[in-house]
Amino acid sequence: MFAKRIERLTSSLVRDILAAASRPGVISFAGGLPADEALFRPDMASTVSSGALDCWQYGQTEGEPALRELIAEQGRALGIDCTAAQVLVLSGSQQGIDLVAKLFIEEDTRVLVEAPAYLAALQAFRLFGADFQPVAVDTVSGPDVAQFAEALSRSQLAYLTPTFQNPSGYCYPDAQRQQVAAALDAANVPLFEDDPYRELAFDAPAPLPIAGRLKNAPWVYQGSFSKTLAPGLRLGFLIAHPQLVPHLTRLKQAADLHSNRLSQQLVASMLNGGLQEHVQRVLPIYRERRDAMDAALHKHLGDLVTWQKPVGGLFFWVRFKQTIDTHALMQQALAADIAIMPGDAFFAGTAPESCLRLNFSHSSLAEIEEGMTRLAKLLR
Amino acid sequence: MFAKRIERLTSSLVRDILAAASRPGVISFAGGLPADEALFRPDMASTVSSGALDCWQYGQTEGEPALRELIAEQGRALGIDCTAAQVLVLSGSQQGIDLVAKLFIEEDTRVLVEAPAYLAALQAFRLFGADFQPVAVDTVSGPDVAQFAEALSRSQLAYLTPTFQNPSGYCYPDAQRQQVAAALDAANVPLFEDDPYRELAFDAPAPLPIAGRLKNAPWVYQGSFSKTLAPGLRLGFLIAHPQLVPHLTRLKQAADLHSNRLSQQLVASMLNGGLQEHVQRVLPIYRERRDAMDAALHKHLGDLVTWQKPVGGLFFWVRFKQTIDTHALMQQALAADIAIMPGDAFFAGTAPESCLRLNFSHSSLAEIEEGMTRLAKLLR
Repeated sequence: MFAKRIERLTSSLVRDILAAASRPGVISFAGGLPADEALFRPDMASTVSSGALDCWQYGQTEGEPALRELIAEQGRALGIDCTAAQVLVLSGSQQGIDLVAKLFIEEDTRVLVEAPAYLAALQAFRLFGADFQPVAVDTVSGPDVAQFAEALSRSQLAYLTPTFQNPSGYCYPDAQRQQVAAALDAANVPLFEDDPYRELAFDAPAPLPIAGRLKNAPWVYQGSFSKTLAPGLRLGFLIAHPQLVPHLTRLKQAADLHSNRLSQQLVASMLNGGLQEHVQRVLPIYRERRDAMDAALHKHLGDLVTWQKPVGGLFFWVRFKQTIDTHALMQQALAADIAIMPGDAFFAGTAPESCLRLNFSHSSLAEIEEGMTRLAKLLR
Repeated sequence: MFAKRIERLTSSLVRDILAAASRPGVISFAGGLPADEALFRPDMASTVSSGALDCWQYGQTEGEPALRELIAEQGRALGIDCTAAQVLVLSGSQQGIDLVAKLFIEEDTRVLVEAPAYLAALQAFRLFGADFQPVAVDTVSGPDVAQFAEALSRSQLAYLTPTFQNPSGYCYPDAQRQQVAAALDAANVPLFEDDPYRELAFDAPAPLPIAGRLKNAPWVYQGSFSKTLAPGLRLGFLIAHPQLVPHLTRLKQAADLHSNRLSQQLVASMLNGGLQEHVQRVLPIYRERRDAMDAALHKHLGDLVTWQKPVGGLFFWVRFKQTIDTHALMQQALAADIAIMPGDAFFAGTAPESCLRLNFSHSSLAEIEEGMTRLAKLLR
C-alpha cells in the first residue's frame, strides 16, 4: 500500500528515548533542547499589539521581504556574497533538510556525510534513498582531507555541519575550511552546509562558513533561530546559489506554501541587534552548564571515557575506552531516570566505537551533577 | 545534478499570475485569499500575554495535546470515529498533501483525482511521480459513480475534495457520498479527503465527510484553519486511520519537527465556540460578494458562459459556451489590471472545455463589478 520509501523510515528508538526523557522526574541529557532560561520570550503586548501587525493573510513563499533583507545582510557579514533574492525563509531548518533532499536525492544518490552526523538529516536523506558516503570526523582533528576528497569523488552531494557539530561538537578551523572548499570546487559537488549552532560560541567566534569560500561548486547554506531565540517559533532560513533558488522556492511552496508570518515578524524585530544582545545574555548560562558537565565527567567518569570540552553548540561527545553496550546502558539509565543518547544512531554506517551524546544545555547545574553521579554508578 | 523529480516541478505560470495579481491596482480574481475583512486578528495583548503562554521551547511532532483533543472532538462531531491519538497538527493543510504524497506516492503510483482538482495537490503529487486517473466532476451532478468505481479499480489512492471544491465549487450530496464510500470500501483504496472549505457554507451545512462513512478502506481526512481564521497562522490538521498515524507522524518529524506553537495556542483558544462565532460573523461578507459576482456574471457575461452559483467555498467555475484561448485572455486581462486563472491548470489531463476560476472572496463589491465589466469588454 505504501511507497517504497516508507520501508526506510527508520525505527522510532530516538522518538522513544525522547518521549521517555520528557517524563516528569527524568534528568535528560538525551535531547537537544536550548535552556528554558535562555529562550526568547517576546512581550507580545508591547512587541506586536501595535496595530501595525500584518501577518494574518497568505504571505509569500520566499518569506517576508524585510526579514529576507536582514538575513541576506547577516549572510554577507559571514562572507556569503548574496542578495535577499537568494534567501528562503524556512519553517525551521529541518524543513531545509527536506527541501534540499527533494532537490538532490533519489534512490542511490551518493551523499557525503560526516561520521558522526546530525541524526535527523540522516533520517530525511535515507527516506529519499541516499547512498551514504561517510567520512570520519575526529573530534580533535576533524576529517582527513585526502579521505574527504576521495569520498567526494564518489559523491553527488556533500552535507556538512562544520561549526560545533551535532553530535561531535567539532568546529572546522579556518585552514581546514579552505581545504574543504577547494576540494568541493575541484569535484564540483554541491555543498549543503548546516549551521544552526554558530552563535553559541563559548570561547571564540567560529571561522566563516565554507559556502562563502566556494568559487564554482553550487551551495546551500542554512541557519536557524531555534538555538538563539526559540525553537517554538519554528523559523530558520537558507541562502542558496542563484541557480538553486527557483527550485527550492517551488519545493517550499509544495511543502507548506509559506512560513508562519507572526514568527517571521517577531524574528525580524530581533535582527537589528536584538538577537546578538540576547545571545550575549544567554551565553553565560550555556558556558556554566558546559563547564559543570566537563567537571562532572572528570570527577565521575574520567577513567572510563574520553572527550573534548566543546567550544560551542549543545553537546558533549563521549567515547568509551572499552566497548560497552550503550543501548543496554541507555535502558538502565532510563530505569534510574536518566536519559542518554547512544552514539551509534549518529552514524550512517557502523559506529567505530562505543559513544554517547550528552546534552548539557537543558539541565540545571544540580541536575548535571546528579545525573552524572547516577550514570557513573551504573557503569561501575 | 538534480533528482529526476525536479523535471516534474511544473511551470511557474500560476506563480507568475499570482505575483502579477499582487501588483498594486490589480483587481484579482486569480488567487484563493480569504477576505481581509474576515481574518481572525487575535488581540495579542489580551489573548496571549497572560504569562501562561508556554510555546517557545521545542514541542511535540503530533501537536499540542489540548489542540489535538479539541480537533478530535470536532472530528467526532462530523461523524469521524476518532481519538486525539489519530490527530496530527499540520503547518497548514498543504503540508498534509506533502506528507500523504510521501506516504503513498512514488513513480507511477496511480492516483484517482477529480477533474478539475486542487492545483497545488496535483503539483505535489506530480512531483512524487503520480500517474493520474482523472474522473470528471460535473458542476451540477458531480462524478458519475460507475466511472468513479472504474477509475478506482485502477488506482492506489483517491484524492477527493467533496465539499465546495476548489475550483469547481461542487459539493457531493449525502447519497453520492454514501456511494463513493461504498466504492472505496469495495476497492479497498485509501481515501485522502481534503476539506478546507466546509465551514464556508452559505446556504446549508455540508453533508458529513466521506471518511467517516468508510467501513474498511484506510483514510486521511484533513482540514484547515486558513479559511476560517487566518492563513498567516499556517495551521491545519489531519485525522487518520490508526494504521497510518505512526508513518505520518515520522514523516512530519522529518519535514519540520513540529508546527508553530504560538499559532497552535491561538487556534486552540478559538476552538471552544469562538471559531463558530467568528465564522457566523464573516459568512455574510462572503455571501454578499458571492451574490455580487453572480449578479455581475448575469449582467456582463450571461450570454457567453455558464456557471453554478457556489453554495460554499471561495470560487466561481465559469465555462465558456465556445472555445476561447483562456491564456491569451488572461494576458489581456492582466494588461487591463484584472487577474484571472485559466481553468486548464486544474486538470491532470486535458481540459475538456474553456473555463476560468474566479475568486470572489478577496475583492470588494465595487471591484467585482468593475473587474467583470472590464473582463466583458475584453471578450467582446
